[in-house]
Amino acid sequence: MSFDSINAGAAGRLVPVELAKAYRLLNHGPVTLVTSAHAGRRNVMAASWAMPLDFQPPKVAVVIDSRTLTRELVEASGEFALNIPARVQAAATLESGSRSGREQDKFAAAGLTTFAAKEIAAPLVAGCLGWLECRVIPEPANAARHDLFIAEVVAAWADSAAFSNGRWHFPDRECRSMHYLAGGAFFATGEAFQVEPGASE
Amino acid sequence: MSFDSINAGAAGRLVPVELAKAYRLLNHGPVTLVTSAHAGRRNVMAASWAMPLDFQPPKVAVVIDSRTLTRELVEASGEFALNIPARVQAAATLESGSRSGREQDKFAAAGLTTFAAKEIAAPLVAGCLGWLECRVIPEPANAARHDLFIAEVVAAWADSAAFSNGRWHFPDRECRSMHYLAGGAFFATGEAFQVEPGASE
Repeated sequence: MSFDSINAGAAGRLVPVELAKAYRLLNHGPVTLVTSAHAGRRNVMAASWAMPLDFQPPKVAVVIDSRTLTRELVEASGEFALNIPARVQAAATLESGSRSGREQDKFAAAGLTTFAAKEIAAPLVAGCLGWLECRVIPEPANAARHDLFIAEVVAAWADSAAFSNGRWHFPDRECRSMHYLAGGAFFATGEAFQVEPGASE
Repeated sequence: MSFDSINAGAAGRLVPVELAKAYRLLNHGPVTLVTSAHAGRRNVMAASWAMPLDFQPPKVAVVIDSRTLTRELVEASGEFALNIPARVQAAATLESGSRSGREQDKFAAAGLTTFAAKEIAAPLVAGCLGWLECRVIPEPANAARHDLFIAEVVAAWADSAAFSNGRWHFPDRECRSMHYLAGGAFFATGEAFQVEPGASE
């Protein structure tokens, strides 16, 4: 599937996110799916340890264990994508965090389909709510010491049903981002509320 | 207030979190309050860009802007605490993220009271749901390049009304963690749900 033919799960709803607001896809701490590809191999891995690191140019930090196929593909390609899955993809998210891509095609095992990214070779996961295409800023000491990868966000996209004008606005129970605890336990992103500056005074 | 006389907001409910499970206080991506102290000065700052970095010994990563008083106190003391505020503290959280501690006592301005930590000099914020006492692992390159601080968690605590046996179990609407988007917009941590391995097959 080509990028322009759009995310199968959100036909016609895939919209670009301006880079200065890309951090907002990740700011609330959702679980992510890290996708990667190199030399004909590709993989997907769940990651909760991902966060924004800068606004403009937007950067992210993510922890990628040294024993994973994802690590091998990210180090070889210098690229990855952070996909923000919807609650309806919770089982697939857990699945992609529980096995190694060396043993099987994890996309197929988890029932995930993909479409092509615009700036990187790693595929994007269809049906997600947001996508950050990332190019690694090489920092061998962080990788070696902490399994930590820092990357610049070079393109960002969202399902406009859930995110537009720099804001999340989850339309229903299933079309929400998730937060991961441990052992298969998740939280849905919950009630939105607004606080006005000075409200505590 | 001494540590042993307990968090004023949760009398009798402050329990230690074993270090191997301390990451679970932060794994779901809640907004945090970073507290710091040095040489008679102290400060509190909201931070969404914080995440676990390792399980055992537990480590965390947090972004602390170079222009902040918190940065000065953390660099001077080599310590900080990550406090996980409750929804009822949303206005105070926004307040502590909106002003500089150089201009005023932000604890007082935000209506936050504190109690003493056990292993570090930085105070802990009363009424929060969880607390991670952290000792910085000096990495000047990460601080200079990315405003990024990596630290070992040396003690962790939780309000047992919201977290026990390594699990969050928020008792009501106000006693929940929060996730921050931007511009005063928050999400409460929402509905908990469990996925069994293999559920997507």
